[in-house]
Amino acid sequence: MSNRILELLSSGSGQYVSGELLSRELGISRTAIWKQIKKLEVQGYVIEASPRLGYRLAGKPSKLTMPELMEHLRDTSIVSSIKLFESVDSTQNIAHRLAEEGAPSGTLVIAEQQTSGRGRMGRQWVSPSGKGIYMSMVLRPDLPLQFAPQLTLLTAVALCRALKEIAPLPIGIKWPNDLLIEGKKISGILLESAAEDERLRHVIMGIGISVNLTEDDYPEELLPIATSLRIASGGEPLDRAAVIASFMKQFEHLYAVYISQGFSPIQTLWEALSVTLHKPTKLMTPQGVVEGIPVALNDSGALLVRLGDGREMPIFSAESMRPPQG
Amino acid sequence: MSNRILELLSSGSGQYVSGELLSRELGISRTAIWKQIKKLEVQGYVIEASPRLGYRLAGKPSKLTMPELMEHLRDTSIVSSIKLFESVDSTQNIAHRLAEEGAPSGTLVIAEQQTSGRGRMGRQWVSPSGKGIYMSMVLRPDLPLQFAPQLTLLTAVALCRALKEIAPLPIGIKWPNDLLIEGKKISGILLESAAEDERLRHVIMGIGISVNLTEDDYPEELLPIATSLRIASGGEPLDRAAVIASFMKQFEHLYAVYISQGFSPIQTLWEALSVTLHKPTKLMTPQGVVEGIPVALNDSGALLVRLGDGREMPIFSAESMRPPQG
Repeated sequence: MSNRILELLSSGSGQYVSGELLSRELGISRTAIWKQIKKLEVQGYVIEASPRLGYRLAGKPSKLTMPELMEHLRDTSIVSSIKLFESVDSTQNIAHRLAEEGAPSGTLVIAEQQTSGRGRMGRQWVSPSGKGIYMSMVLRPDLPLQFAPQLTLLTAVALCRALKEIAPLPIGIKWPNDLLIEGKKISGILLESAAEDERLRHVIMGIGISVNLTEDDYPEELLPIATSLRIASGGEPLDRAAVIASFMKQFEHLYAVYISQGFSPIQTLWEALSVTLHKPTKLMTPQGVVEGIPVALNDSGALLVRLGDGREMPIFSAESMRPPQG
Repeated sequence: MSNRILELLSSGSGQYVSGELLSRELGISRTAIWKQIKKLEVQGYVIEASPRLGYRLAGKPSKLTMPELMEHLRDTSIVSSIKLFESVDSTQNIAHRLAEEGAPSGTLVIAEQQTSGRGRMGRQWVSPSGKGIYMSMVLRPDLPLQFAPQLTLLTAVALCRALKEIAPLPIGIKWPNDLLIEGKKISGILLESAAEDERLRHVIMGIGISVNLTEDDYPEELLPIATSLRIASGGEPLDRAAVIASFMKQFEHLYAVYISQGFSPIQTLWEALSVTLHKPTKLMTPQGVVEGIPVALNDSGALLVRLGDGREMPIFSAESMRPPQG
């Protein structure tokens, strides 16, 4: 139904097509037409409505296509294969399944839309069609389990550098791996690991990036805490395939540095990009509330927090972090 | 078919029942009877055969029963529920599924038999019916991912102490978590972890213990490297429920020590029980072959190996370890 409307609008070559004509051609009411138009808008089509003139197709969703992705990723060797989906429950779930079935390292799952995108701690990840990047990659790093949190921090550094390359914005890393622009979240990273004793079996690296979302795409309660590259850089849509390629190049480079030189250079880069350090913070940890000033990462990737008495406490994991009250 | 034979043998109250009678009652050949008898033996029944007298039921497999397990585990609080199976592919697989479905910490899966028991690195675990302990427990420890390898070492200490309590044998720990008696393996531990970034989501603690296996239960190639508590302690079968309870008590105790005092006391106990330390060793690590003398564990649970030049190298994971050649 909405496909037929799309055809009719497209045949108008950017000119208005009257609601009456659409209604007659499809044999449905003008209210029904309007509902189909809304569906198309959700898919990323930009449709202008005029009470007098009808509807006009003003913009198509920019779809990620295989040839375009292949072209952009030509210079990287970290991606071994790409699975591109229109709509999935969660790219993370699909990559998990592929990993269990033996998919090699570098298997990359990308979807235009997620119906149950997952963020850290089971939180939902807003994933409207054609607007963001929703991807999960199977990694089989030859690393001991203890090093997985370092990989989480490395991923944040790679993504931060990639986004800054695409759009020169003040993007910073909130420990451990959220990216923020002026306090608003722009991307999320979720590394899910499966290990056997002290050995990593595989890691599913999930990345969500709010690239071309507009303010209309967010539930109202998220507007004060979430933004997109497009909103933050002034309104023009960005090329998602270029963003993906930029991340993969950064990740490949930093991973090579990490394997040859260890965590120390990654640690330095993370600290330089962090918006978490040197600000009084209250952390909800499994062991209770910790108040202090985060001063650095330690060797294993934990956040070192200086307490009131001057002691430095390594924080391995925290539910949430925020400025202390009052 | 074999159930009917069992009935007939049981009705003999320990006396011989002729093959002729069995053959007539079941309407099958004496060769077919013999095949059914073999099946029963595999299930743990002890059946004596006499060419002249026929067959005699000399022993039944000792089955683990729920009331017996509940009774033995009454004093522990770490087990929240028990699922007892006759035969499964792998208790580890079942516990994984339960964990994914939300099973609480302490959910314990026990099976009399595994058809595809799994050991470390995808190796098979010999799991004949009624002879060993094959169990997997869902744990949801509030620990950062980095600490999972410490849990592996803690499990080895708990199991070693439990088995020594049951049978006073020279049982030692081979790094990280195999238990050996005079170089022969008596149990295996496999901790499979699922993590989200720096947080452990759940751990499936798999334990296989060769309790009452006899030499006939092992493929010939395993005899030089595998043994059972029964073989090592002189031939009498042991009470498996008591072994399970002994382990759970030790694990519960040591876990409480670990949570309140950290890894250091566990480290000390592990080192005292280890058969790995202070012997020249060749380790196949993902980074290559390392030769040296293991001297201790480090804080994060890695094995510290002193190299020829006196440096100490932390080994996080190794494919195999054996004495250097020649």
